[in-house]
Amino acid sequence: MQKDVIETLQKMREKSPLVHCITNLVVMQVNANVLLACGASPLMAHAQEELEDLEKIVNALVLNIGTLDKHTIASMNVAGDFANKYKKPVVLDPVGAGASKLRTETALSIIRTIKPCIVRGNGSEIMALAGELGETKGVDSTKDSLSVVKEAKRIANDFNMVVSVSGEVDMITDGKHIAHVSGGNPLMTLVTGIGCSATAVTGACMAVAKTPFIGAISAMALFASAGEKAGKKAHGPGSFLPLFLDELYHADFNDAAKRVTLS
Amino acid sequence: MQKDVIETLQKMREKSPLVHCITNLVVMQVNANVLLACGASPLMAHAQEELEDLEKIVNALVLNIGTLDKHTIASMNVAGDFANKYKKPVVLDPVGAGASKLRTETALSIIRTIKPCIVRGNGSEIMALAGELGETKGVDSTKDSLSVVKEAKRIANDFNMVVSVSGEVDMITDGKHIAHVSGGNPLMTLVTGIGCSATAVTGACMAVAKTPFIGAISAMALFASAGEKAGKKAHGPGSFLPLFLDELYHADFNDAAKRVTLS
Amino acid sequence: MQKDVIETLQKMREKSPLVHCITNLVVMQVNANVLLACGASPLMAHAQEELEDLEKIVNALVLNIGTLDKHTIASMNVAGDFANKYKKPVVLDPVGAGASKLRTETALSIIRTIKPCIVRGNGSEIMALAGELGETKGVDSTKDSLSVVKEAKRIANDFNMVVSVSGEVDMITDGKHIAHVSGGNPLMTLVTGIGCSATAVTGACMAVAKTPFIGAISAMALFASAGEKAGKKAHGPGSFLPLFLDELYHADFNDAAKRVTLS
Repeated sequence: MQKDVIETLQKMREKSPLVHCITNLVVMQVNANVLLACGASPLMAHAQEELEDLEKIVNALVLNIGTLDKHTIASMNVAGDFANKYKKPVVLDPVGAGASKLRTETALSIIRTIKPCIVRGNGSEIMALAGELGETKGVDSTKDSLSVVKEAKRIANDFNMVVSVSGEVDMITDGKHIAHVSGGNPLMTLVTGIGCSATAVTGACMAVAKTPFIGAISAMALFASAGEKAGKKAHGPGSFLPLFLDELYHADFNDAAKRVTLS
Repeated sequence: MQKDVIETLQKMREKSPLVHCITNLVVMQVNANVLLACGASPLMAHAQEELEDLEKIVNALVLNIGTLDKHTIASMNVAGDFANKYKKPVVLDPVGAGASKLRTETALSIIRTIKPCIVRGNGSEIMALAGELGETKGVDSTKDSLSVVKEAKRIANDFNMVVSVSGEVDMITDGKHIAHVSGGNPLMTLVTGIGCSATAVTGACMAVAKTPFIGAISAMALFASAGEKAGKKAHGPGSFLPLFLDELYHADFNDAAKRVTLS
Repeated sequence: MQKDVIETLQKMREKSPLVHCITNLVVMQVNANVLLACGASPLMAHAQEELEDLEKIVNALVLNIGTLDKHTIASMNVAGDFANKYKKPVVLDPVGAGASKLRTETALSIIRTIKPCIVRGNGSEIMALAGELGETKGVDSTKDSLSVVKEAKRIANDFNMVVSVSGEVDMITDGKHIAHVSGGNPLMTLVTGIGCSATAVTGACMAVAKTPFIGAISAMALFASAGEKAGKKAHGPGSFLPLFLDELYHADFNDAAKRVTLS
């Protein structure tokens, strides 16, 4: 696995995959800057009239429901259909699933119809989705990592996708295997868009990885490594972001790979 | 008052109020980062379909008309009504009031119908609103601080709200009392979204403060302290923003409180 | 020419032109911060209801199609008509022209109907437009700088506008004369919105310059100088942006002017 992670991160830098993000209004700039620092190319666009043209040329599609509305939901669905038509991988970030019915239902609908190969979120979001996707409804968004593992494995299997859960230790599962990624820094939770950017980079890794599981792990490993190094130099969340982008740019792929353990 | 300011800023960090911002497209990222650095939690969302769900769980609603259009105005009105229904405090930033009829009228309509407990703007914006809200129309947006005080007091009384006016020395009034806050740095005017972020933090303070007057003062005091410290270290507006976020994160609440004088 | 560049940059700082940007969602914050650092004033707004009020008071209008949709296209057309009515210069950034039919056609339509005085883009974008605007359609977006010069000159003449092409060496033509601007740093391509910000500053320079040609050159000269200095101090794209803003703020207009050669 460590060799696969190194190879994926190297390929991302060599091939500079074009990642189409239909993402939330808060994080567009930081997502673009993170993708560029990692060696990928960002493309932000949502007009339905151009989505077929764009889905032909991009290497991955990342959907993020952070500031969703009926217009962006419609764009996500159209883009997702074209991504499927042109066989481009789709990654979903179900931001705020559980906080409103609209968010939970939009995320579920994308999972059921667009069939993303990776869903990346935090523990609460994954539990909210798993609760609705399971037989028992209304499961509490507890953050107990043990139940997240169980529920994440179940929905990974049911929907044939990889589930990537960020936390103090990240947990990624394809339904059969489980990987953990350790590292990072608490300041990462105090800068808006770091999680959403991890999803964007998951899309970039997915575009060049052998499997969605390796793609999802590689992105989180890169973030764990760069985040830990930036956190050691930062005086607070303001100085963290420029340092984090510089660390992503100078990323040590070996160090990133060492943060991954399979169980 | 100084004790109240310290207590409010401490509570904001302890309770981490969830602040729903319907704000302009330019400042979303910096508003979110400022709220996080201060210990609060940002929530950006505008889809009418989820506003009731969200207004139930948030601790304050901040409306900012910086890039308004008919869709965002409708969302602000719906969110404002639900905030009133669920007794969540509303803060308004009338960005650009006076620059266009649409901005002035939208701000006035929100003041009259949503009844925010705090309006925070610069001198020109407050004068533009006061001119329209008074008996004599068409008052010039002069920045004479004496007339701002008089007009701000009048609309504070007429609409039972606190008016917070930023400037070299900030002036906050509840219609009866007047507070001044000194400090800051001229670089704060050369970074987009610092004023809008002061409004967002006013919402966060309001969510935990004893009164809107104390909430409004606490936010400006925190900005005056952190801004002055960051300004001393900065080489320009680019280095100012990361330093400012770091200073907010390590805020000295006593220093903030010392910047407040009541008259 | 060097004297004209210095004079234009000085005037921009003295007169602080108000630049109305209808720009893409990714770069709004950085565009605003760059304009402020250069001494200009940003105004972001798109509601059709206020565009006549605003076009009366602004000093330039900058249109950027980076995240276009039918709503923003309509706003750009209305704003462009009012800018023409009130004799305010218009600058166009045809972001992504060639990547989708919608982008190419929107840019062409703005050139034909709004008649911007400057179009600023990269080589691929300018070639895509020149291909469609010429007799032979479907010209490849090759980046051969020789063909960009020829095609840029042709459309500059045909549409009576200045064409400003960014690249390792920037090339600006009014159809008769050609200017080159050298400097900058490769990190400028790894931070989102630097190109779009060059367009915004082109608008600010245009508002105070003797001719569109001088305005376009002055903006690129300022970026080449500040970008080169920031690049020498930066450790990566994250530290580059704050340094770049600081360098713009402390700009050396003589150094900027030295980067320009006429041929």
